[in-house]
Amino acid sequence: MTITHPRGFRASGVAAGLKASGNPDVAVVVNDGPDYTAAGVFTGNRVKAAPVLWSQQVLKGGVIRAVVLNSGGANACTGSQGFRDTHSTAEHTATVLRSTKKMMIGAGDIAVCSTGLIGELLPMDKLLPGVNAAVKALAADGGPRAAEAIMTTDTVAKNAVAQRDGWSVGGIAKGAGMLAPALATMLVVITTDASADNETLDAALRAATRVTFDRIDADGCMSTNDTVLLLASGASDRQPSLAELTAAVTEVCHDLAQQLIADAEGATKHIAIEVAGAASEADAVQVGRSVAGNNLVKTAFFGNDPNWGRILAAVGTTSAAFQPDRIDVAINGVWVCRNGAAAEDRSKVDLRGRDVQVTINLREGEMNATIWTTDLSHAYVHENSAYSS
Amino acid sequence: MTITHPRGFRASGVAAGLKASGNPDVAVVVNDGPDYTAAGVFTGNRVKAAPVLWSQQVLKGGVIRAVVLNSGGANACTGSQGFRDTHSTAEHTATVLRSTKKMMIGAGDIAVCSTGLIGELLPMDKLLPGVNAAVKALAADGGPRAAEAIMTTDTVAKNAVAQRDGWSVGGIAKGAGMLAPALATMLVVITTDASADNETLDAALRAATRVTFDRIDADGCMSTNDTVLLLASGASDRQPSLAELTAAVTEVCHDLAQQLIADAEGATKHIAIEVAGAASEADAVQVGRSVAGNNLVKTAFFGNDPNWGRILAAVGTTSAAFQPDRIDVAINGVWVCRNGAAAEDRSKVDLRGRDVQVTINLREGEMNATIWTTDLSHAYVHENSAYSS
Repeated sequence: MTITHPRGFRASGVAAGLKASGNPDVAVVVNDGPDYTAAGVFTGNRVKAAPVLWSQQVLKGGVIRAVVLNSGGANACTGSQGFRDTHSTAEHTATVLRSTKKMMIGAGDIAVCSTGLIGELLPMDKLLPGVNAAVKALAADGGPRAAEAIMTTDTVAKNAVAQRDGWSVGGIAKGAGMLAPALATMLVVITTDASADNETLDAALRAATRVTFDRIDADGCMSTNDTVLLLASGASDRQPSLAELTAAVTEVCHDLAQQLIADAEGATKHIAIEVAGAASEADAVQVGRSVAGNNLVKTAFFGNDPNWGRILAAVGTTSAAFQPDRIDVAINGVWVCRNGAAAEDRSKVDLRGRDVQVTINLREGEMNATIWTTDLSHAYVHENSAYSS
Repeated sequence: MTITHPRGFRASGVAAGLKASGNPDVAVVVNDGPDYTAAGVFTGNRVKAAPVLWSQQVLKGGVIRAVVLNSGGANACTGSQGFRDTHSTAEHTATVLRSTKKMMIGAGDIAVCSTGLIGELLPMDKLLPGVNAAVKALAADGGPRAAEAIMTTDTVAKNAVAQRDGWSVGGIAKGAGMLAPALATMLVVITTDASADNETLDAALRAATRVTFDRIDADGCMSTNDTVLLLASGASDRQPSLAELTAAVTEVCHDLAQQLIADAEGATKHIAIEVAGAASEADAVQVGRSVAGNNLVKTAFFGNDPNWGRILAAVGTTSAAFQPDRIDVAINGVWVCRNGAAAEDRSKVDLRGRDVQVTINLREGEMNATIWTTDLSHAYVHENSAYSS
């Protein structure tokens, strides 16, 4: 139920000592072909970590044969030395895969992903021996160990699979804070044994991330390292249509995105903000993000308070088409606001459970979108004020 | 040292029972002339409270003779009944001022401001008797009592004065959460005994708020009720130039804005984000707001953690002109980041005090701007999860 479920992939995760905890922190994923097509989506942050800049270059070559990932350090804001370290990591991984696994592979075929604290150089004296161990540990059932090795403040490893007739898509993900529109401190590797060219993979991946990872928001903070890679081995010898492939990749991305929100730092609520009746999908997304990112809305839900007035105030900061006196809002099925004013008694709203459903009907059109977010809790403040110390 | 310092004004604050605490909650400010010129700046939120819609209409008439303010209820998202209640409040205040103070005044000369919980109708049976009592209590030294009566979660009343040769500007303010770009849940009344026409007052007020209230951000949340009013009595018979008036109004607005940030809900830090070397003032403001609004930056400061990487990640989400590998960042005078990478040892940064100075040099030009904000603390989460319950 992970990236090694589709045929043609091996993976591993080992402890190299980058994390003070001694937990696994280096992962390798290898595509054994026969195809090596790939696609990627990266952070929209203009301050990009060295591994993001590197992997974007690799992708331009059209082939990804392997991915090397580390937790315990983001290698972001590390200047030219940081970029040289990423390059060295890819070179070293290629050398080890050539010498011990007889793979015909160069550094330019290897994507690199890093996650952890920003602004510090990676301990290369630990990372490179870790790569040796990870290559040695590569296994056809190694996906779950790779998923563990990329965890940072995640409390559980994230794996997913979409099974189709004769082919499948698998994925791993990490990320528990800095989840925001246009991705997050989020590393995701998705594999498939379907056969597809780069253009098809790119179209499927962009369609999938647009309605999944791009619609979760834990704290509105966009990371420097976000990377989502899709690797195709063609080992199934099946060639699904773009629609079929998109549906399967979207299924895996949705599953992983929900796991990310469920495990977001310090969250006590899993909140779906559904915006209906919008004049356009862009309007629906804008309104959903504004509400999802509003600290007063998020603290209210932490306090089990159905404070719909704060929701309207957040809607009011957008440029979406709406009339203030036409908006309806339901919280967990109770229409606490109709026509922009109080309606059903707010005391009827039961917020004791973890799942919260907010529905905002703008009554301007037929479009809708859902944004998933979390509450803002004491634990969020605690985790994020203590992270680097 | 308040709104009744300039000549020609009386004010009062009384307890009318709108607040469960029994604290003062209704204020009246009267301009006794000879001039009744005025200007106002209101929330940019498209969901505007009834008193905002009302006061905007009043201002179009060009005259404000009195302001009636209440805490204990925002009268926002209250539909047509809410607007009728605001209208009734102004009518009632006019009637009482005519009958007991012999003032020639109509409802259309009276601005209304409300603050408190959104989405509930005001208890008019308490508010209108409160207006009677407030009018009766009007006094030439009543400014501090008006400042007390508009407090919500504020812990201290906010008053300020700028004294000039023969004339002065005074102000009161409330607001401790929902402070954001383009104003905040913030009510401000500013008075002056200078003589100035409406156009001059408007120009002075807009110039002042643009660099003061518009540059503070406690939690990124924009309110439905923000109002800043400037009333001129002309009682000093002085007519300062626009530049002189702007300077004095800016001095009062800056003083009040700093008091608001100092008293922001749950804050343990008072943080100035100075953006220097920007290609334009708009770039500097955009970068400053992005950093000031970033929850990961704010939690880091709560934890006394000089996490400059999170600052760079926040800069990276903007569209300002910058090169990632040219940005310098100092925290409390220590240049922890140069050229987008680690520089001086972060352990040299002393964050034990309440005041924090962040300087971000984009090295793209000569423009700069400062945004003031707070940290994100456990107390913020507590206050805002418990506010309406």
